[in-house]
Amino acid sequence: MSSGNGISRRSLLAAGAAAAGAGALARPALAQSRIEWSMVTSWPKNLPGPGVSAERIARDIETASRGRMVVQVRAAGEIVPALAVFDAVSEGTAEMAHTASLFWAGKAKAAPVFTAAPFGLTPLEHITWIDHGGGQALWDELYRPFGVKPFMAGNTGFQMGGWYRGEINSLDDFKGLKIRMPGLGGEVARRLGATPVSLPASEILPALQSGTIDATEFLGPWSDLAMGFWQVAKNYYWPGFHEPNGTGEGLVSISAWQELPDDLKAIVRHVLAVENIRGLGEAEWENARALEQLTQDKGVVLRRFPDDFLAAARQASDDVFDELAETGGVQTEIVESYRSARARMQPWSEVSEAALLAARR
Amino acid sequence: MSSGNGISRRSLLAAGAAAAGAGALARPALAQSRIEWSMVTSWPKNLPGPGVSAERIARDIETASRGRMVVQVRAAGEIVPALAVFDAVSEGTAEMAHTASLFWAGKAKAAPVFTAAPFGLTPLEHITWIDHGGGQALWDELYRPFGVKPFMAGNTGFQMGGWYRGEINSLDDFKGLKIRMPGLGGEVARRLGATPVSLPASEILPALQSGTIDATEFLGPWSDLAMGFWQVAKNYYWPGFHEPNGTGEGLVSISAWQELPDDLKAIVRHVLAVENIRGLGEAEWENARALEQLTQDKGVVLRRFPDDFLAAARQASDDVFDELAETGGVQTEIVESYRSARARMQPWSEVSEAALLAARR
Repeated sequence: MSSGNGISRRSLLAAGAAAAGAGALARPALAQSRIEWSMVTSWPKNLPGPGVSAERIARDIETASRGRMVVQVRAAGEIVPALAVFDAVSEGTAEMAHTASLFWAGKAKAAPVFTAAPFGLTPLEHITWIDHGGGQALWDELYRPFGVKPFMAGNTGFQMGGWYRGEINSLDDFKGLKIRMPGLGGEVARRLGATPVSLPASEILPALQSGTIDATEFLGPWSDLAMGFWQVAKNYYWPGFHEPNGTGEGLVSISAWQELPDDLKAIVRHVLAVENIRGLGEAEWENARALEQLTQDKGVVLRRFPDDFLAAARQASDDVFDELAETGGVQTEIVESYRSARARMQPWSEVSEAALLAARR
Repeated sequence: MSSGNGISRRSLLAAGAAAAGAGALARPALAQSRIEWSMVTSWPKNLPGPGVSAERIARDIETASRGRMVVQVRAAGEIVPALAVFDAVSEGTAEMAHTASLFWAGKAKAAPVFTAAPFGLTPLEHITWIDHGGGQALWDELYRPFGVKPFMAGNTGFQMGGWYRGEINSLDDFKGLKIRMPGLGGEVARRLGATPVSLPASEILPALQSGTIDATEFLGPWSDLAMGFWQVAKNYYWPGFHEPNGTGEGLVSISAWQELPDDLKAIVRHVLAVENIRGLGEAEWENARALEQLTQDKGVVLRRFPDDFLAAARQASDDVFDELAETGGVQTEIVESYRSARARMQPWSEVSEAALLAARR
């Protein structure tokens, strides 16, 4: 990128001064006018879904700003480990991160709600809550003490319920299972009598193969197909009650943000919002395609969780949420706002989305 | 807006020249560097939903471009009438329009599919088809002979099935009704034995009051509440099988587009995509809120269309689509692409969106 693309009011004034004879001043001023940020991510470089989202965000900011702002993507481990990206932005090691709020339960118990919650908002409802139902202000408030500003920045969409070696024909069949399920969903699984196991992505398939675990959830069909779980477990359960959404999180250092002029603020804001819906649409399309492939070519059997299991999971999820609501302060407000958005949107989703899908059957 | 905000490489050079002594050159160059477009719309100024979308698009382009690009919004009737905006962009009267494709059936029978189709794609599925399933390329191809480039640029979301003075307990009750329902939905209503009536927005309520019509659809609860239909007809039917989506259309003159530098192309593209999801989220939130108000405060009764009616409407919709598929050329490709996207997405939507909404009940 040539420095001639990095033009600002400041560089214009400098160039005027330069043309008037003070040539030595011009080049430093032009160099200053380009803003260079690092974006640390929680993903391997170009990981389908989130990793690709991060790269597209960087590219789009550079294009829309005509190279006045350049964002270097640093994959997990390049500068800081995957789960250190929040601290990196908070402490000023990087200006930006691409990650997911579910990793920050240790900082604030309610943070994972901004990714998804068991029996919670669907992707479109979640976007609606954040942008129009008060969610963004609460998310901002939750992270402000850390000097960090959050944005929606991608979405892996609905999850599936997971891969089971055996069948789940009643709640009893679920009891005693060892299942890979992190976060709030894992806590629900524990209350239903299973043992949630925490495993990094690369170790899930071997563990399923050896029988160390009996079941695993991961994401949707797109990622799950690539992970190869269908080779070992043929029963693919739905719905993904534990994570019906997958909002990706763009974190920006508040002090770096405040230094941006209004046009670059607008560009960053727009690019993140574009990637949010582009990532979601891509996940929807690829999930639909992969589901077709799994059932038609890979011998996978789609199975619905039984009613007694879903009823118990719903109750356990409500209990987990009730306890989360007792955290106090903004965290209590988050849980209440989320619940009230769900209560408001459910009747509308019933007569629109759910009714149309039923009528199309 | 001060001219100092309109800064480009050209103005930098001009400013340099000015500072070097050739002052007379500076001002014309600064003026040239600002791009000024008109956006004609099919809506009254600031109409909630689409009219507000148009204003936000103009404001965001100006902010993100630091005033280098300014878009003047011209409401319906200011320069050209509501339904002349496509021709205005095609003929170069305006560089841009904010409208909806359902108005262009006279130019291309398949154009309305890019707004919605009976028993068609949901809002998220529609966005997915356009961005990832080949829809955008076909839309581009359909309008290219007119010198016009289309973008998604807002969304009024799901519609409701409409307001009925009486009850519809079977398909027979629908026969003979005079109903305000335009477009492909109106054609479906005609095949089911009703008489579709075309009426401008301001004449619908009086016609419903006087009994000139027995029923009307319009949009979703947000708009419908403001239109006051609940004062006359208390039966609010669902699902809105005839228009399960409401994509707003941003039209850009291809020749004006080609003159934009890459950064402004990116900014316009991003701003339209942001408004597309922002408009949809706003409609979802306001629809959910208005539905609550209509049922709790206005005595409106929500009713589901009966099964035999929905089955017949589904059949009639398939017939209308079959005939549309015989149009030939790109229009046939559009219908086939849309249908194949729906066929691919339905199984995924069943185990994700529909299943989750059912489990939340």
